[in-house]
Amino acid sequence: MNWVYGFAHRHSRAPKDLKALLGGKGANLAEMTSVLALPVPPGFTITTEACRAFMATGWPGDLDAEIDHHIVSLERFMGRRLGDPADPLLVSVRSGAAFSMPGMMDTVLDLGLNDASVRGLAAGTDERFALDSYRRFLAMYGRIVLDVPGEGFDQRLEDAKREAGVATDAELSSDALQHLVDEYQALVEAETGAPFPQDPRQQLKGAVEAVFRSWRSPRAQAYRRRERIPDDLGTAVNVQAMVFGNRDDRSGTGVAFTRNPSTGSAGAYGDFLVNAQGEDVVAGIRTTLPLEAMADSFPACYTELTFILERLEAHYRDMLDCEFTIEHDRLWMLQTRVGKRTGAAALRIAVALTEDPKIRLNRAEAVQRVRPEHLDQVLHPQLGDVKVPLLATGLAASPGAAVGRAYFDADRAVEAVQRGERVVLVRPETSPDDVHGIAAADGVLTSRGGLVSHAAVVARGWGKPAVCGAESLSVRADSLETDSGVVVAEGEWISIDGSSGRVYGGEVALAEGHVPAEFAILLGWADEIRSGRLGVRANADTGVDAARARELGAEGIGLCRTEHMFLDEARLPIVRRMILATDPHEEQAALAELLEVQRADFEEVLEAMDGLPVTVRLLDPPLHEFLPSIEELVVLEARGQLPDGGRELLDAARHWQEQNPMLGLRGVRLGIVKDGLYRMQVRALVEAAVRRQGQGGRPVVEVMIPLVINLPELDLTRQWVQEEVAAVLAEHDARLDVKVGTMIETPRAALRADEIAEAADFFSFGTNDLTQMTLGFSRDDVAPILERYLELGLLSIDPFESIDQSGVGELVHLAVERGRATRPTLKLGVCGEHGGDPSSIAFFQSVGVDYVSCSPFRVPVARLAAAQAVLGQGGPGADV
Amino acid sequence: MNWVYGFAHRHSRAPKDLKALLGGKGANLAEMTSVLALPVPPGFTITTEACRAFMATGWPGDLDAEIDHHIVSLERFMGRRLGDPADPLLVSVRSGAAFSMPGMMDTVLDLGLNDASVRGLAAGTDERFALDSYRRFLAMYGRIVLDVPGEGFDQRLEDAKREAGVATDAELSSDALQHLVDEYQALVEAETGAPFPQDPRQQLKGAVEAVFRSWRSPRAQAYRRRERIPDDLGTAVNVQAMVFGNRDDRSGTGVAFTRNPSTGSAGAYGDFLVNAQGEDVVAGIRTTLPLEAMADSFPACYTELTFILERLEAHYRDMLDCEFTIEHDRLWMLQTRVGKRTGAAALRIAVALTEDPKIRLNRAEAVQRVRPEHLDQVLHPQLGDVKVPLLATGLAASPGAAVGRAYFDADRAVEAVQRGERVVLVRPETSPDDVHGIAAADGVLTSRGGLVSHAAVVARGWGKPAVCGAESLSVRADSLETDSGVVVAEGEWISIDGSSGRVYGGEVALAEGHVPAEFAILLGWADEIRSGRLGVRANADTGVDAARARELGAEGIGLCRTEHMFLDEARLPIVRRMILATDPHEEQAALAELLEVQRADFEEVLEAMDGLPVTVRLLDPPLHEFLPSIEELVVLEARGQLPDGGRELLDAARHWQEQNPMLGLRGVRLGIVKDGLYRMQVRALVEAAVRRQGQGGRPVVEVMIPLVINLPELDLTRQWVQEEVAAVLAEHDARLDVKVGTMIETPRAALRADEIAEAADFFSFGTNDLTQMTLGFSRDDVAPILERYLELGLLSIDPFESIDQSGVGELVHLAVERGRATRPTLKLGVCGEHGGDPSSIAFFQSVGVDYVSCSPFRVPVARLAAAQAVLGQGGPGADV
Repeated sequence: MNWVYGFAHRHSRAPKDLKALLGGKGANLAEMTSVLALPVPPGFTITTEACRAFMATGWPGDLDAEIDHHIVSLERFMGRRLGDPADPLLVSVRSGAAFSMPGMMDTVLDLGLNDASVRGLAAGTDERFALDSYRRFLAMYGRIVLDVPGEGFDQRLEDAKREAGVATDAELSSDALQHLVDEYQALVEAETGAPFPQDPRQQLKGAVEAVFRSWRSPRAQAYRRRERIPDDLGTAVNVQAMVFGNRDDRSGTGVAFTRNPSTGSAGAYGDFLVNAQGEDVVAGIRTTLPLEAMADSFPACYTELTFILERLEAHYRDMLDCEFTIEHDRLWMLQTRVGKRTGAAALRIAVALTEDPKIRLNRAEAVQRVRPEHLDQVLHPQLGDVKVPLLATGLAASPGAAVGRAYFDADRAVEAVQRGERVVLVRPETSPDDVHGIAAADGVLTSRGGLVSHAAVVARGWGKPAVCGAESLSVRADSLETDSGVVVAEGEWISIDGSSGRVYGGEVALAEGHVPAEFAILLGWADEIRSGRLGVRANADTGVDAARARELGAEGIGLCRTEHMFLDEARLPIVRRMILATDPHEEQAALAELLEVQRADFEEVLEAMDGLPVTVRLLDPPLHEFLPSIEELVVLEARGQLPDGGRELLDAARHWQEQNPMLGLRGVRLGIVKDGLYRMQVRALVEAAVRRQGQGGRPVVEVMIPLVINLPELDLTRQWVQEEVAAVLAEHDARLDVKVGTMIETPRAALRADEIAEAADFFSFGTNDLTQMTLGFSRDDVAPILERYLELGLLSIDPFESIDQSGVGELVHLAVERGRATRPTLKLGVCGEHGGDPSSIAFFQSVGVDYVSCSPFRVPVARLAAAQAVLGQGGPGADV
Repeated sequence: MNWVYGFAHRHSRAPKDLKALLGGKGANLAEMTSVLALPVPPGFTITTEACRAFMATGWPGDLDAEIDHHIVSLERFMGRRLGDPADPLLVSVRSGAAFSMPGMMDTVLDLGLNDASVRGLAAGTDERFALDSYRRFLAMYGRIVLDVPGEGFDQRLEDAKREAGVATDAELSSDALQHLVDEYQALVEAETGAPFPQDPRQQLKGAVEAVFRSWRSPRAQAYRRRERIPDDLGTAVNVQAMVFGNRDDRSGTGVAFTRNPSTGSAGAYGDFLVNAQGEDVVAGIRTTLPLEAMADSFPACYTELTFILERLEAHYRDMLDCEFTIEHDRLWMLQTRVGKRTGAAALRIAVALTEDPKIRLNRAEAVQRVRPEHLDQVLHPQLGDVKVPLLATGLAASPGAAVGRAYFDADRAVEAVQRGERVVLVRPETSPDDVHGIAAADGVLTSRGGLVSHAAVVARGWGKPAVCGAESLSVRADSLETDSGVVVAEGEWISIDGSSGRVYGGEVALAEGHVPAEFAILLGWADEIRSGRLGVRANADTGVDAARARELGAEGIGLCRTEHMFLDEARLPIVRRMILATDPHEEQAALAELLEVQRADFEEVLEAMDGLPVTVRLLDPPLHEFLPSIEELVVLEARGQLPDGGRELLDAARHWQEQNPMLGLRGVRLGIVKDGLYRMQVRALVEAAVRRQGQGGRPVVEVMIPLVINLPELDLTRQWVQEEVAAVLAEHDARLDVKVGTMIETPRAALRADEIAEAADFFSFGTNDLTQMTLGFSRDDVAPILERYLELGLLSIDPFESIDQSGVGELVHLAVERGRATRPTLKLGVCGEHGGDPSSIAFFQSVGVDYVSCSPFRVPVARLAAAQAVLGQGGPGADV
């Protein structure tokens, strides 16, 4: 068994493709050394296999010998020996898993120093440098490997500077440094009960083991869960000969990108510091110089570096970032990897690399280089530098950032906006009563509810940033309080980041999203790739939303929710008259009024989507959503303040009240109990379509019946639809092909898709409800459960964010198979919120869905993800 | 194709087994004629095939000829011709489907009379008799076949009696009758636009077609849906020569049972009338004589009849009822069928027939002769003669009847019972707050909620009669009002029948249930049959319930709900302290108090079930069930009447409030979020078991985790359980094998039963929740939907009453297969309310479940149904 490979080892495959074995860092170090023959300090990689063996059964018996063997090679190559009191070899030890992962062990530098070898280092350099290196190593190793709290070291350093009367470390004398070295060693012995290990081989083994252990640190575990990285990969460990950028003024260190990671523009870009170590660049204590400054101070190294950067980019065919060090005018490459980039840069680079003659990415490759978050970044505002406190972290419910004054009531939020204020609406949860407040506000924050709660769905629909289910906040009538007692009163500033779920107290600067020209080019390529394979439609309820969706590339509407048309303030009274009607005549009169307004709504939507399919879902929510809350009414009643008609409203609210409205009188059930409603909606829709035809339009209409559980429901309502369509067409002597389909959103409908398909031209999977019922999770109540479950690892994903493939997904799969067995031409779509989630899109593509439908602002992401799914680049499987 | 068979036709199989073809009535007429050669008036049966053909494509072309052929045979046999003006053949026409079915066409008698043949009949008998028969025929045919409203005939008869100055029909003169005949014919012509058909063959065809059509009458359809009789069977039609029990005083008619249908005692039993037709016996206008009276007035006929009855019972091997007529001292058997009987009679007859030397039923046959309703009848009180108005019909939620004064509040109900009143508790719906009221009342009535609503489940658990979801009633704070405006105020009498769902205004006499000795014998046989195949346990939460369940034959507890132990008035404050606890110390203190009381509860349960398994479900319901309602608290607050601590309670109620508690923080989720709770419960249980061991008991303990969706939840909680078990056993140096299993009640758990079985010793299907989630029906809100759906035929069953086999059932089936694939020894039970439903029990048996568990009073029914399921006698398949 080979547990260890030198960087120069000739692997049978390109080392950069061996990340699973060598980790990302090790793979790239080997690539640079063995393939590109770049100047990399020599070293070796202890593989992830060794880590996995360690986790399974402890330190492998033969690992010591292999490490020893490589250390000897390294000593021979460098001409120095580990622990040599005269001229010691020093090494760095760094973790490196296949995926970059916070929470893994930090780098340990200068390993190999001890009370004797520090003298040898001093002899070869100078005493101050050697002692400073030694005290840094003691603190680093003590903290990272031996778990000695870092404050002990910091405190002693502060004391030393105070005693010496100096401001910076650099001003400490050799004596002071020697004193610190002694103090640090005493501290380690006091804390660990053993003296600091003087044997470099023991130091090395300790560091390697600490790296292995850090794979299982809570932070790393949490990160893997969040990023859906498997838990059993393990990490590699890289041991590399030290070079010193802080040896003298002919030394230095820096970070270089092959292109600008913020803008994507071509040409090397980076930071540089003279006489410094890498951590100094990262720590930001000293002000760095731009990379170009090297051209003056280190012209040869600069020429060599730019040459290497070009070579690396051409070799890797992507923008890279690198760490480098100059020791005594000699350039060393310490690390390279694919560079992180902003959304705008990602788009520009992907397109530019297709034109670069040395690289010539093809379009499929370019499409795979852009991530969904990149598109969100260019479409939505982002927070700039945050200098105010974090109040809470909730669910990242709708991407982008919003900054405004907190208002705790929808009406007051609207008034504030009318006064010209910027507003974030803050509510425990939202209901249809708050919709005008959401419309007016720049963003929404709720303390309850999951990713498909009302607030989240509405906010995403309108592209408003939102953080939902921030459970640690107590939201009151006119203030909120954090769990640590910080209060934000109405009118005070808050900032929310809907992409990360973070909530800040105070005003953070906001950078508006900017869409570069490459956005359209790249999404055009994505469309070519997915064309005929996986369509993308939008969920849109109004002409404005439909037009926006079309602009963003939607190929139709997959879900036009008709209830939102009922919630308009002007219409609510008519809806209430219909609900309160005590005789059929009154009810008919109210329905006739609604017919007028719905027809107008449909006309706008059909006009915006002219020539593209519009799938209209007949009324779905329980009627009590259109009535005021019982709690408010009984309070008014108890105070003797019930207004005229309040008694009737209260009676109606009680009559329609349900214990579990999600499982109640909604969807097709409502259509069947209030049986004039669906006919009215279909009439409005078909009349609108006929009017559009009269204006030269080409309306394409599909009617969708929600919440079906069996065939008889669909048979009955389909018959109503067809009768009404026929009647309207006959009245106007018009022709129109209206498809009738159903949502598959109850587990029973999925199981019995074979029979249901007999009456359906299409299925649309309502995966929100299907998730609610399959897992027994109410979208409105799930937040505190999810929080705890994700924390404990009982769930690996939020199933409302990414579809639970092995539970809900099996039902989708069954329904696809059974539905198509009955009706091979059955058209299959997805209109739940999963329709905009990349890993869910990959799943839907794999089971044979024809299109996904998502909120308008999510359409670009879905187009990209659909293309990537077609290319076989799904995210890692999601599973509950 | 043979559409028609004479009664004397020699079929290749016993005609009584040809009910599907001949209908029940026709099959038995043929059996009596062709096999037993009993004196049956000759006739023929038009088959159900003819009816099906008629429904599919209209009147079969060759049916007329076949009927003609049989009429000619009949004429030849009787020596009379249809329509003969001199001596006409008259026939009766009766429907007869395979299942007896209300809503089918009534009998038409004396068909063949017309203006000419009535003279011939007069000549052979007397004029008054002939004219009276003719006017009866005109009215009957007019109403039944020609759809002329019956009031027209009644009105004219009343007018005739008034004009003649007489009180009864029998006093009308021939002239008056002739006048009525003329008036009836004019009425028919006015209503139908055509004269009354004089051609007897046209009369016959019309009557046959009317029978065919009546198969599709709304009442028949509704009945079939309710009784789960397939819709496409069709009905047969029986045409039989008339004999006249009303010809003279040497004629008569009667109904005879081979045994007493009320008590089951041996010997013929029945009613008899001299000079009368069958309808006179049924109508109850004249007072009938007991059958024995025939021995004096018609000794020869009586001897013949008793001989025939004995022969019939021995032939059919069951108690029968028969209609017979005597014409001029000659006995004719008009009909026979298996006799309806009371529960007590069913039990006695089934056992007696095993001992009858002519019959010798075996035990399996005897078990199959008793129906679940029969057991309910002997176990629960029944309403006697009802002379008060029907107020409403709700769901038959818990069998038996209750009569008492209506109380609309649980506290007031308790007070009334303490004053010595009999009480029916009436609520819109019940919650845990009402439990003491249910305990005190004789019965429960709610206007909302389905068959697994709180009221229904609690009432069934205690064997209290209940009617739930009587949607047409408006239940207020101290009165109820029917949809027709009848008001019942608090303290007024009402009577409810929990077996039929009927609610009456006023006091109805109540007959207590009486359990005959044969009950134990028969259920003993049932137990022998199902032994080792399908066990029966009970759902019981207290020692008292457990003891009762054991008495009724339960073989253990399949579901011991621990939340009911928390709802006791004395304990609620402790539970609330636990919920309100702001620090872990307070919470621990409350849990420690709960530990004491739970341990005592468990000791009682384990003692009552000593030696039998007790499956304890850890806490399941959302915590807010233990808190007062927000609505009540905000009203108090608005009035300034919030008591001490009310503010905290309101805050807590708001904190724990959920939009859809059924899909919220309950079951294992609650256990995980409040993580001391489950450990406390397990400790209480194991300590109780150890104490029982100390007293020489043999406790058998199983711990069940509710609402699981995946393996990690079960792994974690199973580990807690095992740690706590080990700790308690170590403390007491005791040994106890505790099985740990889970409920399968979410669709996901069923789908992923393979993985979940890795950590489960047993599964128990919670089919209530599984039904809620698979169909998206909230048990508390489903009543108005179900009502409409059953009415429209969109559902054929209430899926909370009988399991939806093709939806929920598929999930159960999948889970059985997948669970056993992982763990072949997996024990499988059912503890939802379906565990007591016979057709569901048959389904569970068919998919390989090991036991069902139901409420204690349902245990006998489940034992019987389980045995019948093992014998392969399931009910017709239930399906949504």
